[in-house]
Amino acid sequence: MPNQPIPFSDVVINDSFWSPKLRVNREISLPFQYRQLKESGRLDALRLEWTPNSGKPEPHHFWDSDTAKWVEAASYCLALKADAELQARLDAVIDLFVAAQQPDGYLNSRYSIIDTHLRWKNLRDNHELYCAGHLIEAAVAHFQALGSRKFLDVAIRFADYIVSVFGRGDGQIRGYCGHEEIELALVRLWQATGHMRFLDLASYFVEERGQKPIYFGTETDRTRLNEGNSAYFQAHLPVREQTEAVGHAVRAVYLYSAMADLSRELGDPSLFDACRRLWDNIAETRLYITGQIGSTKHGEAFTGAYDLPNEGAYCETCAGVGLIFWNHRMLQLDCDARYADQIEQSLYNGVLSGMALDGKSFFYQNPLFDRGKHRRQEWFGCSCCPSNLSRLLASLGSYIASVIPKGVAIHQYISGDIRVALPDAGQVEFVIEGQFPWQGKVTLNIRPGRACRFELALRIPSWARDYTVSIDGVPIKPAVRKGYCVLAQEWRGGERIELEFSMPVERVVSNPSVISNRSQVALQRGPIVYCLEGADHEAPIENIALPQNAKLSDRFIPDFLGGVCVVEGSGKAVSSKIWTGKLYQPITQTFSESTSIRAIPYFAWANRAPGTMTVWVTQT
Amino acid sequence: MPNQPIPFSDVVINDSFWSPKLRVNREISLPFQYRQLKESGRLDALRLEWTPNSGKPEPHHFWDSDTAKWVEAASYCLALKADAELQARLDAVIDLFVAAQQPDGYLNSRYSIIDTHLRWKNLRDNHELYCAGHLIEAAVAHFQALGSRKFLDVAIRFADYIVSVFGRGDGQIRGYCGHEEIELALVRLWQATGHMRFLDLASYFVEERGQKPIYFGTETDRTRLNEGNSAYFQAHLPVREQTEAVGHAVRAVYLYSAMADLSRELGDPSLFDACRRLWDNIAETRLYITGQIGSTKHGEAFTGAYDLPNEGAYCETCAGVGLIFWNHRMLQLDCDARYADQIEQSLYNGVLSGMALDGKSFFYQNPLFDRGKHRRQEWFGCSCCPSNLSRLLASLGSYIASVIPKGVAIHQYISGDIRVALPDAGQVEFVIEGQFPWQGKVTLNIRPGRACRFELALRIPSWARDYTVSIDGVPIKPAVRKGYCVLAQEWRGGERIELEFSMPVERVVSNPSVISNRSQVALQRGPIVYCLEGADHEAPIENIALPQNAKLSDRFIPDFLGGVCVVEGSGKAVSSKIWTGKLYQPITQTFSESTSIRAIPYFAWANRAPGTMTVWVTQT
Repeated sequence: MPNQPIPFSDVVINDSFWSPKLRVNREISLPFQYRQLKESGRLDALRLEWTPNSGKPEPHHFWDSDTAKWVEAASYCLALKADAELQARLDAVIDLFVAAQQPDGYLNSRYSIIDTHLRWKNLRDNHELYCAGHLIEAAVAHFQALGSRKFLDVAIRFADYIVSVFGRGDGQIRGYCGHEEIELALVRLWQATGHMRFLDLASYFVEERGQKPIYFGTETDRTRLNEGNSAYFQAHLPVREQTEAVGHAVRAVYLYSAMADLSRELGDPSLFDACRRLWDNIAETRLYITGQIGSTKHGEAFTGAYDLPNEGAYCETCAGVGLIFWNHRMLQLDCDARYADQIEQSLYNGVLSGMALDGKSFFYQNPLFDRGKHRRQEWFGCSCCPSNLSRLLASLGSYIASVIPKGVAIHQYISGDIRVALPDAGQVEFVIEGQFPWQGKVTLNIRPGRACRFELALRIPSWARDYTVSIDGVPIKPAVRKGYCVLAQEWRGGERIELEFSMPVERVVSNPSVISNRSQVALQRGPIVYCLEGADHEAPIENIALPQNAKLSDRFIPDFLGGVCVVEGSGKAVSSKIWTGKLYQPITQTFSESTSIRAIPYFAWANRAPGTMTVWVTQT
Repeated sequence: MPNQPIPFSDVVINDSFWSPKLRVNREISLPFQYRQLKESGRLDALRLEWTPNSGKPEPHHFWDSDTAKWVEAASYCLALKADAELQARLDAVIDLFVAAQQPDGYLNSRYSIIDTHLRWKNLRDNHELYCAGHLIEAAVAHFQALGSRKFLDVAIRFADYIVSVFGRGDGQIRGYCGHEEIELALVRLWQATGHMRFLDLASYFVEERGQKPIYFGTETDRTRLNEGNSAYFQAHLPVREQTEAVGHAVRAVYLYSAMADLSRELGDPSLFDACRRLWDNIAETRLYITGQIGSTKHGEAFTGAYDLPNEGAYCETCAGVGLIFWNHRMLQLDCDARYADQIEQSLYNGVLSGMALDGKSFFYQNPLFDRGKHRRQEWFGCSCCPSNLSRLLASLGSYIASVIPKGVAIHQYISGDIRVALPDAGQVEFVIEGQFPWQGKVTLNIRPGRACRFELALRIPSWARDYTVSIDGVPIKPAVRKGYCVLAQEWRGGERIELEFSMPVERVVSNPSVISNRSQVALQRGPIVYCLEGADHEAPIENIALPQNAKLSDRFIPDFLGGVCVVEGSGKAVSSKIWTGKLYQPITQTFSESTSIRAIPYFAWANRAPGTMTVWVTQT
């Protein structure tokens, strides 16, 4: 039996690191994004009144998905905290979706009024099923978070129409979407409704992908033939034969998420096996230290093994979010800490960097080196990232713990209260307290409804080389299973577990095959990956080297970048003078100048004046 | 008065390094390319008989240019050495061009029979003027090399027709080509014919570029709108306002070549000033150590300052060839050794690498790191590089020396005889003898027709930290002007000048802003840049580091890679075992294994079994 995540609605986060960020997400980012949706024309587009001579921007084929992700985020926030203004806006947006639905169930603000003859004619490029997927996810989220069927019924009608159009039957379109998303959305709709036809269609879409002849080559409407080959869409091979993560990174991890979902829902281990091969391929050859993926802006895509350029890194915020979605699903299939580790790595680094500390601007790309030109923007023409990040943050509670066959697993040490009903134990409350990610000490209080024996699996983060566990002050040496301490005993209530994970500043190096990082180190402390920013250094940071023996210390600064732990030490720097106007010289590079180094968490970069940033630093 | 290159026809190369390569070019590559031109359909295309149902490949819009460059290369070769078979082939190809010319002068194998209604309708993408340019260059070369006017008259008719079509007059097209080439070709045609209208048109094309509104935005036929913005075509600004090298690298250096030509022919220093700014921009921020340009395959283009990725490097063979063309022109405007240095750097490294040692396969891209996947090919769909390289090699003699205002400058120490008529001195012969690039010693014998005073300017290569000069065994300390030793005296005949440039193995480092090369060194000896190849090493070469104090020695091996000097020493390597399946680790990277290192000249890489190659090596 697979594991079951404890949903965010059963978790109250009360965390000195995350609570302020979730408040910013709720109070600043969501209203801010609403205004952007409105001002950009995305909300009005759903009125289906746009005309070429309206003077307003033409509805784009992925606009509806941006709005849907906002609906999802807003629904999660409202489930946790009432907010009359947000509720009114949400209701109004849902009314727009309801009114925009066509009699046959179809719903898309562009293809209902523009190029209506192209409906389903260019699955590869036109994002209709992708938008449908986000609509379905939003509707399920709205229903589950707030109990309203209004939007869910729209989604069911739309999905039923899609069920009628796609498949292997006579007269049906035997295709699938160029941008995966509908697949995982249909699984969610199956979970919410129990209608098997939705699971069947999700399975069809995943299984059909990569079958020969490749569907996209058979489509008659080829308006954008130049966009790439089938690997870009993960349609080069049937999914079980795919062993390398290729193509557009967001599409890839959305597909893999659906594969994990189907493995679980259909009890099909071969899909999980395929996922594991792809997971290994990413973790061993394609993952940035920031928990991000996508080595190039060209196609927003994976490239080859060990090709992880820092300046050219794409690392789309959505790709990191999708990687978390996928790992979350993998974790429910197999409670292996490596999946939770990767969630943590992405979450605290290359995904959290996607939003400014003030919640009002966003990164699409999250490079690991920048010359001061890459800045967060308020919005994008293709604005998939802001509301994707917001829906992740708004449902962060879901990532903390799972019910496992014999008990509960805690994946992330985010402070708060978790309530879960366990067989025999009744309603159990877990109270997590700590100062993650800045301190490695965590306490966990357990309050079962009645004394009961169950397993408590506590993740040992991969970065923790040493750790101690005690129960009520008595140190224990617990069994370890797939990266989790397993405490199996009778819990009477009131037990206090103390965990302490060592959290020194570490110098991390890359596999030598990653040639862009040769002789470079990254600084990491706990889950936090650090970077150097120009603002903290007199010398150009490209010139700075960190001696192997340099002592590094950490210090929490409450009023700096929203309160972060910085890493400080003494470094050396190349003199810039000898390099003026020169690109190459036959000299020994001498780090002759002394310089102090202050590294800040990567997620907090680009929140001050523009300047150079680097994650990897030369070690000397 | 500008300088005047001494043409290849007045130079007999007799060089232990180059002569075998020129023979391979003449005896192997040219016949090989001829067969490719024939088999690919490029020659038949000129018969203008292709039909869609012929079952043969459709003539592509740049096919004629590949053939024209072959004509140019073959003409140069025949000027130096008669070859009946080559001559017969050349004559037949020229007959094809002659017969393909339309009554109005137009000549293009594609647009004369396919899409004839699109003639001049898509200047941005369709390469018609680009092909015309190569045709003109080939015709001028054929005329100058072999004295035949047959092809030249075709080119003049075509150019006259182009003169009638383009310009600022009523009914004329006020456009220019998306791929620069016609500009420099028209200057050559002016030089060959003295017809001012060709120089005027070259000037018009260069001056019109980048004027607002950008012409490409006004073309009605926009069949390939996706290809990039105006900077890709160097059409973003009027040429004198351009200060950064941007866009497609080959197009850029062809434009800059024409700007230098026009500066010289029109006596316009402002165009030379613009060239110098662009030259500095490349030399200081965009040049690979192999003398190559183009940091990305996407658009075959320049990227930003200091962005010089090694694995992703594009470094198109044609771009390096074009860089040599441009520097050759700059050198005639200003006898500054930096231009000759750059010619040498490109020629011996990133351009020569474009051809296999056996002359039968070619690189389009010349990356500085490869995992064994990048191999030379016999031919390409877009096969601009092979015959471009062949025409450069076939005319190599032109790059050795120039007549300067008061005498002669020797730029490249390629052994051979140079004959030039100097005022007062009559016919002067210079005999260069040496073992460049493997040995730094050169002797120069001077044989003037009659005793005469003139300046002899001898380039001091930028890599030579020390050098000695003697005349008839007497050491002298010559004056140095812009990187040239200037020997101004009366030459009676029989003088023997001995030059010796120190040529130790050097470790070269990059400006720290080139983040892909941080902590890396490249090995260079004389003009030759070295690389490590997998074939010579047991350890994966990514794992190898070169200790700062490692002794490096050089050794000439006559029967290795056609006879090269290798660099050998002792290195260290990271153990691969600790990295199996791992991408990052919090460890100190330890170079614990000893390994021998053998570096080979970069130009000779990929001539053995596929394997990894790197130019930049970690220094420890």
